[in-house]
Amino acid sequence: MTPTMYSPDGRIYQVEYAIETVKRGTLAIGIKTQNGVLVAVEEKARALQTSNITQKIFQVDRHIGVAAAGYIPDARIQVDRARLFAQSNKIAYDESVEVETVSKHLADQCHQFTQYSGVRPYGVSLIIAGVDQKGESVYVTDPSGTYVSFAAVAIGAGAEEVNDFLEKAYADNITLEEGAALAIAAVNLKSHNEDGVKHIKMAFISSDTKSLEKVSDEDLQKYSKLALEKFKNNA
Amino acid sequence: MTPTMYSPDGRIYQVEYAIETVKRGTLAIGIKTQNGVLVAVEEKARALQTSNITQKIFQVDRHIGVAAAGYIPDARIQVDRARLFAQSNKIAYDESVEVETVSKHLADQCHQFTQYSGVRPYGVSLIIAGVDQKGESVYVTDPSGTYVSFAAVAIGAGAEEVNDFLEKAYADNITLEEGAALAIAAVNLKSHNEDGVKHIKMAFISSDTKSLEKVSDEDLQKYSKLALEKFKNNA
Amino acid sequence: MTPTMYSPDGRIYQVEYAIETVKRGTLAIGIKTQNGVLVAVEEKARALQTSNITQKIFQVDRHIGVAAAGYIPDARIQVDRARLFAQSNKIAYDESVEVETVSKHLADQCHQFTQYSGVRPYGVSLIIAGVDQKGESVYVTDPSGTYVSFAAVAIGAGAEEVNDFLEKAYADNITLEEGAALAIAAVNLKSHNEDGVKHIKMAFISSDTKSLEKVSDEDLQKYSKLALEKFKNNA
Amino acid sequence: MTPTMYSPDGRIYQVEYAIETVKRGTLAIGIKTQNGVLVAVEEKARALQTSNITQKIFQVDRHIGVAAAGYIPDARIQVDRARLFAQSNKIAYDESVEVETVSKHLADQCHQFTQYSGVRPYGVSLIIAGVDQKGESVYVTDPSGTYVSFAAVAIGAGAEEVNDFLEKAYADNITLEEGAALAIAAVNLKSHNEDGVKHIKMAFISSDTKSLEKVSDEDLQKYSKLALEKFKNNA
Amino acid sequence: MTPTMYSPDGRIYQVEYAIETVKRGTLAIGIKTQNGVLVAVEEKARALQTSNITQKIFQVDRHIGVAAAGYIPDARIQVDRARLFAQSNKIAYDESVEVETVSKHLADQCHQFTQYSGVRPYGVSLIIAGVDQKGESVYVTDPSGTYVSFAAVAIGAGAEEVNDFLEKAYADNITLEEGAALAIAAVNLKSHNEDGVKHIKMAFISSDTKSLEKVSDEDLQKYSKLALEKFKNNA
Amino acid sequence: MTPTMYSPDGRIYQVEYAIETVKRGTLAIGIKTQNGVLVAVEEKARALQTSNITQKIFQVDRHIGVAAAGYIPDARIQVDRARLFAQSNKIAYDESVEVETVSKHLADQCHQFTQYSGVRPYGVSLIIAGVDQKGESVYVTDPSGTYVSFAAVAIGAGAEEVNDFLEKAYADNITLEEGAALAIAAVNLKSHNEDGVKHIKMAFISSDTKSLEKVSDEDLQKYSKLALEKFKNNA
Amino acid sequence: MTPTMYSPDGRIYQVEYAIETVKRGTLAIGIKTQNGVLVAVEEKARALQTSNITQKIFQVDRHIGVAAAGYIPDARIQVDRARLFAQSNKIAYDESVEVETVSKHLADQCHQFTQYSGVRPYGVSLIIAGVDQKGESVYVTDPSGTYVSFAAVAIGAGAEEVNDFLEKAYADNITLEEGAALAIAAVNLKSHNEDGVKHIKMAFISSDTKSLEKVSDEDLQKYSKLALEKFKNNA
Repeated sequence: MTPTMYSPDGRIYQVEYAIETVKRGTLAIGIKTQNGVLVAVEEKARALQTSNITQKIFQVDRHIGVAAAGYIPDARIQVDRARLFAQSNKIAYDESVEVETVSKHLADQCHQFTQYSGVRPYGVSLIIAGVDQKGESVYVTDPSGTYVSFAAVAIGAGAEEVNDFLEKAYADNITLEEGAALAIAAVNLKSHNEDGVKHIKMAFISSDTKSLEKVSDEDLQKYSKLALEKFKNNA
Repeated sequence: MTPTMYSPDGRIYQVEYAIETVKRGTLAIGIKTQNGVLVAVEEKARALQTSNITQKIFQVDRHIGVAAAGYIPDARIQVDRARLFAQSNKIAYDESVEVETVSKHLADQCHQFTQYSGVRPYGVSLIIAGVDQKGESVYVTDPSGTYVSFAAVAIGAGAEEVNDFLEKAYADNITLEEGAALAIAAVNLKSHNEDGVKHIKMAFISSDTKSLEKVSDEDLQKYSKLALEKFKNNA
Repeated sequence: MTPTMYSPDGRIYQVEYAIETVKRGTLAIGIKTQNGVLVAVEEKARALQTSNITQKIFQVDRHIGVAAAGYIPDARIQVDRARLFAQSNKIAYDESVEVETVSKHLADQCHQFTQYSGVRPYGVSLIIAGVDQKGESVYVTDPSGTYVSFAAVAIGAGAEEVNDFLEKAYADNITLEEGAALAIAAVNLKSHNEDGVKHIKMAFISSDTKSLEKVSDEDLQKYSKLALEKFKNNA
Repeated sequence: MTPTMYSPDGRIYQVEYAIETVKRGTLAIGIKTQNGVLVAVEEKARALQTSNITQKIFQVDRHIGVAAAGYIPDARIQVDRARLFAQSNKIAYDESVEVETVSKHLADQCHQFTQYSGVRPYGVSLIIAGVDQKGESVYVTDPSGTYVSFAAVAIGAGAEEVNDFLEKAYADNITLEEGAALAIAAVNLKSHNEDGVKHIKMAFISSDTKSLEKVSDEDLQKYSKLALEKFKNNA
Repeated sequence: MTPTMYSPDGRIYQVEYAIETVKRGTLAIGIKTQNGVLVAVEEKARALQTSNITQKIFQVDRHIGVAAAGYIPDARIQVDRARLFAQSNKIAYDESVEVETVSKHLADQCHQFTQYSGVRPYGVSLIIAGVDQKGESVYVTDPSGTYVSFAAVAIGAGAEEVNDFLEKAYADNITLEEGAALAIAAVNLKSHNEDGVKHIKMAFISSDTKSLEKVSDEDLQKYSKLALEKFKNNA
Repeated sequence: MTPTMYSPDGRIYQVEYAIETVKRGTLAIGIKTQNGVLVAVEEKARALQTSNITQKIFQVDRHIGVAAAGYIPDARIQVDRARLFAQSNKIAYDESVEVETVSKHLADQCHQFTQYSGVRPYGVSLIIAGVDQKGESVYVTDPSGTYVSFAAVAIGAGAEEVNDFLEKAYADNITLEEGAALAIAAVNLKSHNEDGVKHIKMAFISSDTKSLEKVSDEDLQKYSKLALEKFKNNA
Repeated sequence: MTPTMYSPDGRIYQVEYAIETVKRGTLAIGIKTQNGVLVAVEEKARALQTSNITQKIFQVDRHIGVAAAGYIPDARIQVDRARLFAQSNKIAYDESVEVETVSKHLADQCHQFTQYSGVRPYGVSLIIAGVDQKGESVYVTDPSGTYVSFAAVAIGAGAEEVNDFLEKAYADNITLEEGAALAIAAVNLKSHNEDGVKHIKMAFISSDTKSLEKVSDEDLQKYSKLALEKFKNNA
């Protein structure tokens, strides 16, 4: 039963199983706002783990960040390839790669591993968020090789419920700060430590700087308060 | 049980299973008219999905569009190859590639994956619609590697019933506008939101411009009214 | 159970299963006459299918036609290779390739896929009919890699019964026109629309022109009448 | 269970199964005589099959003929290679290849397919008969890669009984004509149309001409009478 | 069931089984201190085994040591590659490779063997401890291809319990000597010879020298006493 | 279950099964004497088989002969390679290859096919007998890749009993003639036609000539008488 | 179940089965002494086997010997590669290769066959004994790819019990002669012919000569007497 096999009802089992890997991963969120995009992940570090290093948010290029849910080593490898791809694009065309171009490239990688035997499909979904000449955008890739653009999206464990929440709570005109609050509210929807931020990592790419920046713990605290004010009722 | 295996009664199971994948895909339609061709798909976006981007209609060349049903990442990959093929043809022969040539090329791709082990057959059917020096034409490819030319055709979930409808309602002398109405009527035959167009994407290639153009939501609304007038009784 | 496996009683199952694919295909016929050869197929098009294009009769070279029964995409691929082979021959030897040479080449292709694992045998039988410097000839290839020469032959669903009919009705001295009538009678032997010709495609290669020509619908009608006169009793 | 596998009792199943294929083939016979060698096969053509072409006797070189029993397409491929080998030998050494050299080459081909996985063993036995500078000789190869020299030998269906008959009826000093009669008697031993020759094809290589010649139907009739005179009692 | 296969619930079995190999390995520990890092392993030599050679602590570069738990030959091979990688880095960039760079390289190696068939995943976890221009650091890789940074960490049999102990007993400001005592206490937590050091191997990389040095048996004795004083209660 | 697989008790099944093939082969014998070495085989030809050609004794080089038991086509292929090897050695070192060198080369060939998948182990044992600058020697190779030197040895069906006989009857100081008698007695120990020699083939390499010579049927008769005189009681 | 597969509890079955092959091999021993190292094996030759050739002790280089237990053809192949490796080292560095370097090289070879599919792990353990610039040393490799240094060690059938004996009887300051006696006592511990030496082969590498020398049968007799004196009680 390699990826090259269909079930009698036309499903590619190994791809569907790989999507299960994603569903078992911790939650990741991407939000597009008026003045930038953000990615956020729930990340529970072990007690003595060096906590300032995130395993699940990656920078692909100056203006593009990635959040992952599922089998994280696959995400690291995919991001490594995307970095190389982004640099090659910059050299070839003398301008920063577009977010969609990177997203399509990552999805094509995924697709390739659904067709040939001897490899497994990637077991990870990625949220690719960035700001380029076309503006802000947030894409999602999954093990099947699909890529889709969203205004706000959650992947990983509990994503279905969180997406329902985002649908209700999201508005086109929110700011990055409000987006951060929304992301915190969304993560805490499913988390036991409901109002805290210790288990959350977040990164901004503002439309001005077009540059990925880690959100500090202090700022996370601030946005957490905002989250309680604005989104408590939506949950 | 690789694609290279026959069942005792001479069927290639993996190809037949791949055709099941197509049958589980959402409906896609292609129609040839007096003054152009069109492709239309049913496409239900998730709430926060960026809705102006279609996943299921692709442009291969200026004068050729594709609508897909089944495993959409396969369609994307096939279209990527077809684009390259179309460009290579233009460079080699200094004229636009013919629609049939592209269709045969896509079908040959499909066939290749029915014969060799280590890969699965493509899990997608494509409607290739275009206008070339020979006039308007609409082709369909499927996982078996077949390609066939139609005046009007539906693929995907419910295609059988919709094809019966098209057979009754189609006439050789219809215009693009009437074709659009027919396509809307056909999609809504199987859809719950019977008379709406929000779940429909469509593209025209008019015989004059020989150029693919997205049909706007306003125009879809207009054709929807025409559909109610003309084809309500055929359903 | 790849093609490389024998059953305990010395049969190559995958080849025998591929022959089942041929038996499930629609009928194809080839007839050698005094003044030319012909191929004919039963081909039921779907209602809106562009009916003037046949899926089952192919032209390999000016003087050689092919009719197929079984898995038609395999036939298309085999014919593509045969065309290339015929052109290469013409270039190398500066004369048209012989019908037997093409037939052997096609059979060798088939054989290759019965011996190596990782591929399935071709699931199609071909009738190769042509006129060359040695005169008229009709060959049949099958998935096992066999090629045999016949005066008149049927392959596909019901071939056994139709071959019995041909045996009784065929005479060495028939003309192309009588051959066409015989072919129509033979196809209609097994078909429900007994006397019609809408479901029949036919091509002639006359000994004079040594050039494949499609038989028009009007001519098919004419030969159909002849068929009723001459062969009604043989059935 | 590829050819690379032994059974617990040390048998290579796929080779033994391939030998079953030979046993299911129609009878082929080779006989060495005072003034030449001959090969003969039982070959039942279908009614409209072009009867003057044999499927089971091949010419490898001017002075070497082959008769096959089993999976005939394999024989054709083996003979094609043997022809090339014979021509290469002639070019390299400027004299006709020896019959044993060709036989060993054919057996080596067979052996190769008993050792490596991914292919099936050849499903055919060959009788290689020829006249070279060492005189007349008749060899047999089989799917295991064995080659053995005989004075007279039968392979295929019923070979065991026919070999017993040959053993009793054969004499060292017989002539080609007597050999032909012996071969006819041997074939008809197992055949239902006991005394006819329509189902028999035969070829001579006389010691004088060292050149393969088809035996005509008239001559076959003549030898058939001789067979009835001489060998009726041996059966 | 190759590494390329997912279970229906999205787990890569072979990777999880390889992690079982690690859990069956003897304990290994890595600790980061104020003035250096250390690795320690439990290593029970057989009676006549040359005892001054450790099988489970390796030097990758002057400033980087590795401790392994699981299938030790895999560790040796991984370390060999890491040594080459470290040397190549030094030559390319003219400065010592960073500990994280080596750790990522080792994890990437592990990942590669989780994706392709025809190989098994590595059955070993590594603690990579070193001092570079960024200071002291301790990383852990595992068969899945993950790498994570820790202040103090245990892998192998009983690691869970020992990590709980380290969590309670570890403090950021401990010295190398206190770290050594902590490591001894940690190993002896699960060992039968509770207070001895014969079964322990240890290596220091001090922040001053940035050079790996084996801890002598006398020093181990000294630190063992310190362990009894300081950490007896934590256990 | 390829050759690359061990059973739980550490046996390589395919190698052991291949050794069964040897045990099912007819008997072969090698004997070292004062003035030369000999090989002998039991070889039952079919009635019309050309009897002066042996299938089971081969000449590798002027001074080296081989007798085989088991799957004879494997022996032929191995010998072909050994001949090439012997010639290459002669060219490279300008002296005849040593018997041990050839034996090791043959055993290495055997070994190779016990380690890699996709091939089966050779199903044959060889007795390599020769006279070189080191004197007379007799080696045996088997499917496992072992090679061992013997003074006298039997392989194939009944080898165990025959080796017991050789052990009792063999003496270091026997001559080639006595060795021939011993070999005949040994073969007839297990054969039904107890005292005859028709079923025996033998070849000598005398220490003087260092050249393989077939033993004539007359000489075999002579040695047969000697066998009855000398070894009747040992049996 | 290739070598690339783990069991659910993290064991590599094929490696463990290969270790069973070693346990079924006859005993081999390596001992390090004050003035040299030795290897000894139990080797029961068949009656007519040329007894002065050992199958289980090999010379890798002038100063390095190997004793093997398990699947001996694997040992031969491994030693062949080690010889090449030793010669290459000598050429590259202009000094004799170290014993540890050879041992690691042999273990790396073993490891390689535990990781990739399509091959089986080596089914042999080797004792590598030698004297180099670092002094005397004895290493053991096994199918898992491990290599460990010992003062005295036994492998093969009964090794566990014999190692217990060596542990008790071994002393650091023994001489080569005493080591030989110890080895004989150790072999005879498990052997039926308790005090004999006919079934024992031994080789010395003295610290003076650094050159492997076979121990003569007379010397074995002498050491056997010493064994009875010194080690009878230890058993």
